[in-house]
Amino acid sequence: MELVDRLLAGDRRALARLISQIENDGAEARQALAALYPHTGHAHLVGVTGAPGTGKSTLVNEMAKVWRGRGQTVGIVAVDPTSPFSGGALLGDRIRMRDLTGDPGVFIRSMATRGSLGGLARATGDAVKALDAAGFDIVMIETVGAGQAEVDIARTAHTTLVVEAPGFGDDVQAIKAGILEIADVLVVNKADQPGAESTARALMAMLSLGNLRRNWQAPLLKTVATEGRGVAEVVDAVIRHRAYLEASGELARHERARVASELNTLLREALVARLLRRVQDGQLEAAIDRVLAREVDPHTVVEELIASVGSSP
Amino acid sequence: MELVDRLLAGDRRALARLISQIENDGAEARQALAALYPHTGHAHLVGVTGAPGTGKSTLVNEMAKVWRGRGQTVGIVAVDPTSPFSGGALLGDRIRMRDLTGDPGVFIRSMATRGSLGGLARATGDAVKALDAAGFDIVMIETVGAGQAEVDIARTAHTTLVVEAPGFGDDVQAIKAGILEIADVLVVNKADQPGAESTARALMAMLSLGNLRRNWQAPLLKTVATEGRGVAEVVDAVIRHRAYLEASGELARHERARVASELNTLLREALVARLLRRVQDGQLEAAIDRVLAREVDPHTVVEELIASVGSSP
Repeated sequence: MELVDRLLAGDRRALARLISQIENDGAEARQALAALYPHTGHAHLVGVTGAPGTGKSTLVNEMAKVWRGRGQTVGIVAVDPTSPFSGGALLGDRIRMRDLTGDPGVFIRSMATRGSLGGLARATGDAVKALDAAGFDIVMIETVGAGQAEVDIARTAHTTLVVEAPGFGDDVQAIKAGILEIADVLVVNKADQPGAESTARALMAMLSLGNLRRNWQAPLLKTVATEGRGVAEVVDAVIRHRAYLEASGELARHERARVASELNTLLREALVARLLRRVQDGQLEAAIDRVLAREVDPHTVVEELIASVGSSP
Repeated sequence: MELVDRLLAGDRRALARLISQIENDGAEARQALAALYPHTGHAHLVGVTGAPGTGKSTLVNEMAKVWRGRGQTVGIVAVDPTSPFSGGALLGDRIRMRDLTGDPGVFIRSMATRGSLGGLARATGDAVKALDAAGFDIVMIETVGAGQAEVDIARTAHTTLVVEAPGFGDDVQAIKAGILEIADVLVVNKADQPGAESTARALMAMLSLGNLRRNWQAPLLKTVATEGRGVAEVVDAVIRHRAYLEASGELARHERARVASELNTLLREALVARLLRRVQDGQLEAAIDRVLAREVDPHTVVEELIASVGSSP
């Protein structure tokens, strides 16, 4: 377990190597993650989400600088579920690293889709654990888009930031309302652009409705991330949210829900892997053929498959 | 199975009721779906995806009108994985139905998150099957966002439309490239707005790269959906893509991959449900407690849980 010892001693190359193993093949990294698990639980996990064009990568970089200025170390995992190109992700890393290069207190890693999306979600969770075990005070998880990824982040992160920008406020309001539900801190970036005020007002109105239903009053903050304006206030809001989570007992409840959800996911994967090992050659193909011929519906064929391997271990 | 008979006879209220059952509790709808399964496979499934603000709902409505004008029936499932409000979805339905009300050849249904996202994906797939069995020629599946949902659509739909709009073209290019990978037809909507030309040029450059790698040359089309401009050409492109899928044998390959993916998902759910029925009271809670205390890592505890119920049926 040399890799684990080096990682715990602060070796960034060991960390990078473990994350590559996590990305390429969960099985190889598994032993290392089991050994690291007792060392996790220190980091505050911050999810940052928003549509393309809102400038959230810039905001994440600027927040990292503010935290560095306060003596905190920062790990960043940028998840792009839409990009099947690891090359693109790596290029992005290099561009983003420019400002922060040479600072061992910051670690940035992009993760792109390889194989299944379930695989990406698990790989991201494992990469966050690796950064946590490596001792980073803050781990930021940045995701693109306005879909499932956000809700998954809200489950993983302690604090969820939703980033908006002017001009994104005029679509069907129900969409925003859904995203606002998961926002612990709401940021209107590009606040120097036309329409920023009306976007902020529209979001504030919706946010107020959401805040009525919960104890934490999610603030709305304006930033111009490219100039660093307003970024320290966003960091302050994250810190206030952490204090709230601890004082209210929500942190413990959140961690419990997160673990329950993770065990559920792992159970699914382990059980399917076991079943597939027991299924006979061609049995799965035959099941697919019968469904394609519409001789049997998918639910029924799944019950049959399970029954066929059922009682034997 | 009165509901099934009524649905197959063209009763729209029976269809609406089945979809409500699908949404509320998969189990109740299960028997009906098994009975309907032999009647599926007729509809051409069209996925429509794009960020909020691109006007894709308007485009979907206008496409439905074009198809209606050509004597085809159209079912629409609008999926909003970010909205936990079924009320919002219902309101949206009513607003969108206005144009198409009274036409029994169109059926629109929004689906919002209730409970798990896995549940939403399955419910959407089942709703599409219900519309297919009900005899709609075209079933459109509209999703919000730029994340996992798109890739899931690409798996379900025969033809995937990606909708963009001016001003969305200037963010990190890798994001778009990922979305373009799944586009069979690319649409720049709001083509009368400033920047439409440069957005189209940027997208075309990326699309050309993607097209090099595949046999189907995804076209880029410009629309002003609010005025119906260019919409018939989008419908024509979908029809051409369908013909390509059939002629090339890709339709059969696609169907096979879709069934394999569906069986995999159903297997996961069925296996976890079985395991949880066998696990003793408190055993799962105890496992969560041990992970929370970092006595054991999640992977190991999952192996232990499976072993504890393992060999008994």
